Amino acid sequence: MFRSWESNVKMQYFACRRERMELHGKNLIGGELSAEGQRSIVARNPATGKDLFPGFFEATSSEVDRAVRLAADAALPFSQCSPEKLAAFLIEIADQIQRLGDELLARASSESGLGLDRLTGERARTLNQIRLFAEIVRSGSWLQPFIDRALPDRKPLPRPDLRRTCIPIGPVVVFGASNFPLAFSVAGGDTVSALAAGNPVIVKGHPAHPGTSEMVATAIRKAVEASSLPDGVFSLVQGASPRVSIDLVTHPDLRAVGFTGSERAGRALFDAAARRANPIPVYAEMGSVNPVFLLPSAVADAERIARGVFGSFTLGVGQFCTKPGLVIGESGAAFEGLRGRLAELVRDAPAGTMLYGGIRDAFRQRVGEAAEVDGVTEVMAAVPAVVETSDKAEARAHLLSVDAGTWLENQELHEEIFGPATVAVGCDSRAQMTAVANALEGNLTATVHGTPEELEEYADMIAILRGKVGRIIFNGYPTGVEVSYAMHHGGPYPATTDAKYTSVGATAIYRFVRPVCYQDFPDASLPDELKNANPRGLWRVVDGRLTQEGW
Amino acid sequence: MFRSWESNVKMQYFACRRERMELHGKNLIGGELSAEGQRSIVARNPATGKDLFPGFFEATSSEVDRAVRLAADAALPFSQCSPEKLAAFLIEIADQIQRLGDELLARASSESGLGLDRLTGERARTLNQIRLFAEIVRSGSWLQPFIDRALPDRKPLPRPDLRRTCIPIGPVVVFGASNFPLAFSVAGGDTVSALAAGNPVIVKGHPAHPGTSEMVATAIRKAVEASSLPDGVFSLVQGASPRVSIDLVTHPDLRAVGFTGSERAGRALFDAAARRANPIPVYAEMGSVNPVFLLPSAVADAERIARGVFGSFTLGVGQFCTKPGLVIGESGAAFEGLRGRLAELVRDAPAGTMLYGGIRDAFRQRVGEAAEVDGVTEVMAAVPAVVETSDKAEARAHLLSVDAGTWLENQELHEEIFGPATVAVGCDSRAQMTAVANALEGNLTATVHGTPEELEEYADMIAILRGKVGRIIFNGYPTGVEVSYAMHHGGPYPATTDAKYTSVGATAIYRFVRPVCYQDFPDASLPDELKNANPRGLWRVVDGRLTQEGW
Repeated sequence: MFRSWESNVKMQYFACRRERMELHGKNLIGGELSAEGQRSIVARNPATGKDLFPGFFEATSSEVDRAVRLAADAALPFSQCSPEKLAAFLIEIADQIQRLGDELLARASSESGLGLDRLTGERARTLNQIRLFAEIVRSGSWLQPFIDRALPDRKPLPRPDLRRTCIPIGPVVVFGASNFPLAFSVAGGDTVSALAAGNPVIVKGHPAHPGTSEMVATAIRKAVEASSLPDGVFSLVQGASPRVSIDLVTHPDLRAVGFTGSERAGRALFDAAARRANPIPVYAEMGSVNPVFLLPSAVADAERIARGVFGSFTLGVGQFCTKPGLVIGESGAAFEGLRGRLAELVRDAPAGTMLYGGIRDAFRQRVGEAAEVDGVTEVMAAVPAVVETSDKAEARAHLLSVDAGTWLENQELHEEIFGPATVAVGCDSRAQMTAVANALEGNLTATVHGTPEELEEYADMIAILRGKVGRIIFNGYPTGVEVSYAMHHGGPYPATTDAKYTSVGATAIYRFVRPVCYQDFPDASLPDELKNANPRGLWRVVDGRLTQEGW
Repeated sequence: MFRSWESNVKMQYFACRRERMELHGKNLIGGELSAEGQRSIVARNPATGKDLFPGFFEATSSEVDRAVRLAADAALPFSQCSPEKLAAFLIEIADQIQRLGDELLARASSESGLGLDRLTGERARTLNQIRLFAEIVRSGSWLQPFIDRALPDRKPLPRPDLRRTCIPIGPVVVFGASNFPLAFSVAGGDTVSALAAGNPVIVKGHPAHPGTSEMVATAIRKAVEASSLPDGVFSLVQGASPRVSIDLVTHPDLRAVGFTGSERAGRALFDAAARRANPIPVYAEMGSVNPVFLLPSAVADAERIARGVFGSFTLGVGQFCTKPGLVIGESGAAFEGLRGRLAELVRDAPAGTMLYGGIRDAFRQRVGEAAEVDGVTEVMAAVPAVVETSDKAEARAHLLSVDAGTWLENQELHEEIFGPATVAVGCDSRAQMTAVANALEGNLTATVHGTPEELEEYADMIAILRGKVGRIIFNGYPTGVEVSYAMHHGGPYPATTDAKYTSVGATAIYRFVRPVCYQDFPDASLPDELKNANPRGLWRVVDGRLTQEGW
């Protein structure tokens, strides 16, 4: 996918004049189009195996430097933008994206292999996210003000007046994710939550969908200009080589990183940020196996559970970070029946198009590694073998079955397989099921199926699971991540590099702010949220008590 | 101070029977006294230069391993402890410390050189901190519950029921600080905020005050036993060599680190934690120069400001992380007058006893480096030179003066000098003063003196300062850190390794918790704070609206 533009694209150049005119392939450094490097990024349609046009210019080190410096210059004025203006800017971004119309969906579909229905839904989600954050900007809820009023007569020492609010942390780089070319890419949740707090953002577009990235970035640039905001508030740099990512993460003016992708790539960014002279936080959402624990009543309900599990792990060709990659139950005739039903569903499943060839290749390799473990049996979809040898990024569903003893001893079976595969683990006892729960690494989610009575009965195991995950689901499926206030899409390493934060939902904004305390400031010099009269009408903790009152 | 016990202490052993009987010098691994290693840690009284008894056993790797494993075993049961029981445990710790009586203060004084008045105040602060966190445990405010109720009829997809609360993160290691042998050591703010959230704690005692550490740890152990809590809830390991610290921070079962001390040591812990297979957060509070900006009216008020600055930078022999190490004003006759008055105060200042010889040596070295910079003039206290060549850890106050041009060009002048020294910087213009603000690294605090009108006039500079610090003070001094709700004692690197968190005040608890979300759980299986009826009467964000109502 990332072959040289020069070698294979030039001759088809004139045949594609229309699309070529629409997409320029350049980096958007603030308001400027920049193309100092090589036109080396070429997207390929994973459904056809054909290259897409134009080629895109990979950002040079000097372009990255310019983008981050511009962002640093914009940081202070942007942080002083009024909530009304900031919210209007976000809404303008949503409007500009909407105006891109179906051409955006067409390009995203040809770059990702995702269907138009899915992308229509994803666009709606993207716009809803933007509107949610516009609401949060207006409400000011993220400021979390605390006020301790002066106690001048306190003994032995008077207490000063202390007022704590939150401020933006500064330039943020967001790495677009391949599996959500709209909702977790250029104008996705990371970008919007960082902007909502008043931070300039530089997006590194994912090289699998550079055209989609350019279209959305152009929409955001229009919104920046329409809102008369500083130039450095938003930039897009394109890049396929690790050098671009490392240039970004190690830039001295950068203040935080948002990332969704593989554990390998996320860890490389985390390591680079930790080695800086001034380390910065990396919010990387990475690998998760999302175990599904079936309590006895669920095991007995084979048809319903098998259909549910199958639907969830093959949804979007298994390309969700919340895909259930592990299904655990107590062995016996009932569990064998359920595994058998799952195997039938897998055998009958059609092939699906994965996001790009590299992901399909990694999927094949990981399934192969897991299937080779002694004691693992493999069932795969019975579609003609030819699809997996073509240039197209197609993949078949897989079910791997293993007993818990073998699973516990083989680390290869504990790690995420990104794609339409799941591992069904049979336990010889309830104690062994608890041992599986104990052996899990950090995960985004865990799911439990059973009756409310069983949930109480297995409370000890639930407590263990809760300690391993960011979200715990009863009688549902982990795919489907609601964008709301209470959502927590995070979890202990390797699910994320920082278990305290979510990348989905209202509290995602907390990643990009930090507290600051004013001591004995005159009212007129305080930010509005800390003024005596509480002009924004916020809920504030005053002398330890939550109140909306001013004075 | 950390010379071998064997070489210089043995012969005085029998002369000190009484103290020897009181302190055993062993590690407290859960409920067990453990002494597998060498008795290699010897405290010295910095005021007399004499060694103190007994020697203390440095923890071996296997003792560290046992302490962390015990903590890991205790984590789940301790996390399920009721708020009432947890709060009672904290109060019991305070009571047990109080029962140590004045013997604790006497030992702390002989190990730290701090006076009994200061230590009496520090004990009161320590006990108040514990009581504040007991209150927070009872109130449940740190749980920050969010509830999004199910919308079963929503189109195109129903919304599940989502409920977010916070849970403890697991075993925490706390590194005792030398400069607060009570308030930021064994039962200090880090320990208490970690325990309050339900996390087991292992304290690594500071080797400058091992006896104080042992006494307080013994008090905590009594509270653990009186409260019938799991053994691993609290351990104390003693250590002077980096090996002990690295064993702790790299233990696979550890989940977070709290530290107060030098940038060098804090960074070493941060680096070790970042290199782990599963990285964990390090909350290190490190170096800060705490600049004081004098606006014209303050420069003109030489006598008052000189006395205030002098009092603040020599308080506690300059051994506060918030010591003002930089005083900035516009040059001219008024500023020269202020510098002259400061110089007089410094010349007349008595020598002070620093915490231990190593800190005094580092202070001398740093002052020397700064004074050697071309363009720096130095004034020091006129006490007899002999005190600085004695075995005692005495130090004299220093004032270094420099013009802003020289300061801007010399990085040695930007870094913290821990001890009774400050650097007075004269700027040739308001623009140069802003350049100094821009050149600052991250700091815990910045202070501005002037009139409210000047504060408005210099709003641009204030905005720059706010971006560099965790707390900004008007017409006050940074020393004196209130333990309250609105306090934020943190700041960008190198002030801390994580600018989002405070180590002082109510929100310090947020370091040691993480969110978790329950999806579609039956009411009976939810934690109390998420149940429909809201039995704890908490403020919760329900469907985006803050309320105390249940249903």
